[in-house]
Amino acid sequence: MITSEIIAVGSELLTPEKTDTNSLWLTETLNEIGIEVMLKTIVGDDELRLLETIKDALKRSDVVITTGGLGPTEDDLTRQIAAKALGKELVFRQDIEDGIRERFKKMGREMSETNRRQAMVIDGSDVLKNDNGTAPGLLYEEDGKYLIVLPGPPRELKPMFTEQVVPRLKDLAEDFVVKRRIIGVSGMGESVLDELVAPIYTQYSDVRTSILFNKTHVEIHLYLKAENGDEANAILEEMTAKMADALGIAVFTTKGESMEEVVGRMLFERGQTVSTAESCTGGLVGRRFTEVPGSSKYYMEGAITYSNDSKMKMLGVSAETIENHGAVSSQTAEEMAVGIRERSRTDFGISITGIAGPDGGTDEKPVGTVFVGYADANETRSIKLTVPGDRYLVRWRTSQAALDYLRRQMLKQRGRDKV
Amino acid sequence: MITSEIIAVGSELLTPEKTDTNSLWLTETLNEIGIEVMLKTIVGDDELRLLETIKDALKRSDVVITTGGLGPTEDDLTRQIAAKALGKELVFRQDIEDGIRERFKKMGREMSETNRRQAMVIDGSDVLKNDNGTAPGLLYEEDGKYLIVLPGPPRELKPMFTEQVVPRLKDLAEDFVVKRRIIGVSGMGESVLDELVAPIYTQYSDVRTSILFNKTHVEIHLYLKAENGDEANAILEEMTAKMADALGIAVFTTKGESMEEVVGRMLFERGQTVSTAESCTGGLVGRRFTEVPGSSKYYMEGAITYSNDSKMKMLGVSAETIENHGAVSSQTAEEMAVGIRERSRTDFGISITGIAGPDGGTDEKPVGTVFVGYADANETRSIKLTVPGDRYLVRWRTSQAALDYLRRQMLKQRGRDKV
Repeated sequence: MITSEIIAVGSELLTPEKTDTNSLWLTETLNEIGIEVMLKTIVGDDELRLLETIKDALKRSDVVITTGGLGPTEDDLTRQIAAKALGKELVFRQDIEDGIRERFKKMGREMSETNRRQAMVIDGSDVLKNDNGTAPGLLYEEDGKYLIVLPGPPRELKPMFTEQVVPRLKDLAEDFVVKRRIIGVSGMGESVLDELVAPIYTQYSDVRTSILFNKTHVEIHLYLKAENGDEANAILEEMTAKMADALGIAVFTTKGESMEEVVGRMLFERGQTVSTAESCTGGLVGRRFTEVPGSSKYYMEGAITYSNDSKMKMLGVSAETIENHGAVSSQTAEEMAVGIRERSRTDFGISITGIAGPDGGTDEKPVGTVFVGYADANETRSIKLTVPGDRYLVRWRTSQAALDYLRRQMLKQRGRDKV
Repeated sequence: MITSEIIAVGSELLTPEKTDTNSLWLTETLNEIGIEVMLKTIVGDDELRLLETIKDALKRSDVVITTGGLGPTEDDLTRQIAAKALGKELVFRQDIEDGIRERFKKMGREMSETNRRQAMVIDGSDVLKNDNGTAPGLLYEEDGKYLIVLPGPPRELKPMFTEQVVPRLKDLAEDFVVKRRIIGVSGMGESVLDELVAPIYTQYSDVRTSILFNKTHVEIHLYLKAENGDEANAILEEMTAKMADALGIAVFTTKGESMEEVVGRMLFERGQTVSTAESCTGGLVGRRFTEVPGSSKYYMEGAITYSNDSKMKMLGVSAETIENHGAVSSQTAEEMAVGIRERSRTDFGISITGIAGPDGGTDEKPVGTVFVGYADANETRSIKLTVPGDRYLVRWRTSQAALDYLRRQMLKQRGRDKV
């Protein structure tokens, strides 16, 4: 098995505000060609620690990838320290300097003298062209070990890696491929889910199965490393089908799609339309519907009715309903759903009213109390939810539950249509 | 200076889907008590690599923190490998087992035999009580070096660290405190900004200044490590004031607030209200307004008018305007802003219409063409933006620009009121 390590370089990555996102993308891309990532390190602009980290990595892994630290300033150490770790010199390449100078010229600027550093390369390494920035990458190979030095900005790193590195590593790792599946499950707790699928995944010992909480749902991740991609896919298909069977309607995707993609696809395929009326989610459901390209085909309009007044004016909720049952009630939710559906003339109306917190909760209706309403041509329904978490989570989980409620109603409707 | 390293343990952290968020929180908490994080490592459930990583870390850093890998299964190696790295034995502690058994009992369950592993501790270490899970943490100290072993789940790790680890490390690092400021700047590119503030930050060589792109704006991060917290704060205040002066209205916060918090605070303080009409952002601006607790005081309602029909029906945009100028035009944006303001009877109406892509662009109005409309009691205005990026970024940047447009108009209005 070919093993790899990723070293992200840069002091800003050691502050609380910055995460290293390159390594997620690199992991995925390496996994696809059958290379496993065994370790990730984040190191600041610190000579000794960086040197030690690169040296250690070269000792234990086949492919070592560094990201960042290739800028023109003195803080940018990666080029020089990588050379040191290999026991090599840096050599100046006139053609690279010419390229950088040309790049600046095109932007109507003069190349700064500091940029000459970027024309230094590790002796004996291959230069990886950078079409989106000034710093070229470097690839050094010796005795089947690789040190690959990449720039930090994702729009420079990604095309460079895909076009110039992957083709070379692919041959290296041709014996293995990694295949994955992500099954999204909604409205079911982790332990119940585990009980239902454990009898399945325990039969597939080659497949690594993880059950992961997401903020709004649970995901089953299947991961299989195999010599033959088609066989691996067949095994994962079989396993996925069994799991979907065991979990029933709670499975909303077997392809890692988001809930809004799934519901959007269902609406599009049936040529049906939807509109939304949101109170405590304040536009989040509308935003999620419209996140999907092409959503204008089925998502018509939404009302964000935050005040009682706007619930009455925009949606025609009656003053008596709010008076007698409150703005957070099944009655208000249902009138909101009917109201938005009628005024938008869509097939479905979906509504949300609830208490997202941190204030506004009462003994009877604590923070997290939410009603989701549904209306179609024939019926009006609602459900009450008690959503755990802070304001942010209550809103996200509610938006997921509302999309899922529509999905389930549509599946039931199809069931009825068939009869 | 006291240096630290964080080692996150768990194979799931080496997949493309999972990020290590604990380390961000730990970095922030350590920084606050003057301890700098020099390196972060993510390692899988792999004995040899984990052993090497912990050993190396202990050689070069004063405080080494591991997170995760304390579960009851055989995969959970941290306890055992940490002991090995220190050259110590694991010893069984009956009182811990009793505690775990008690915990299970309270939940009406039997303790599984595998949980007995969690009662093994490194000989000579202090046990860190876990009120939110079964695995206790461990703190081992020798010759001023610390190895701190923490559970992975954030709700177990955070209180344990705050209550039981910080008080001990604080003494260690009492000579230093770290203070930060985050200045948010909107509507100004990084290079222009740098030109304006470089004359300021170059005068403060002790303060680390970083200029960072965020997806919607630019942030200036100031970071100062000093012996005296009050003096450090005074220096940062002075520097912040100079920068705010140099950058003018483009600075929307000097306290790291989000744009929706800033605009929300302004509305709240003035007792004014706002409503929104969104097309291509599909509810994102409403969602951002209502993300802030207490927003019901100033955010009244929103219309998500995705179709032309709904722009006419919900907002009273005239058919002629759409016919003559198109749905994506300054005229439509202004009629939308006036329409939502009138029907919600708010002080301000804000509208957005544009092309978020990937489809729908034309030569004349390419993807990223967006109009933001504004209406108050006295005037109606709009701006045209050309927003770079994919659908996701176009929508985010547009929502930021719309909030910022309102902020700037409100500041101007105040200017006029004063005259």
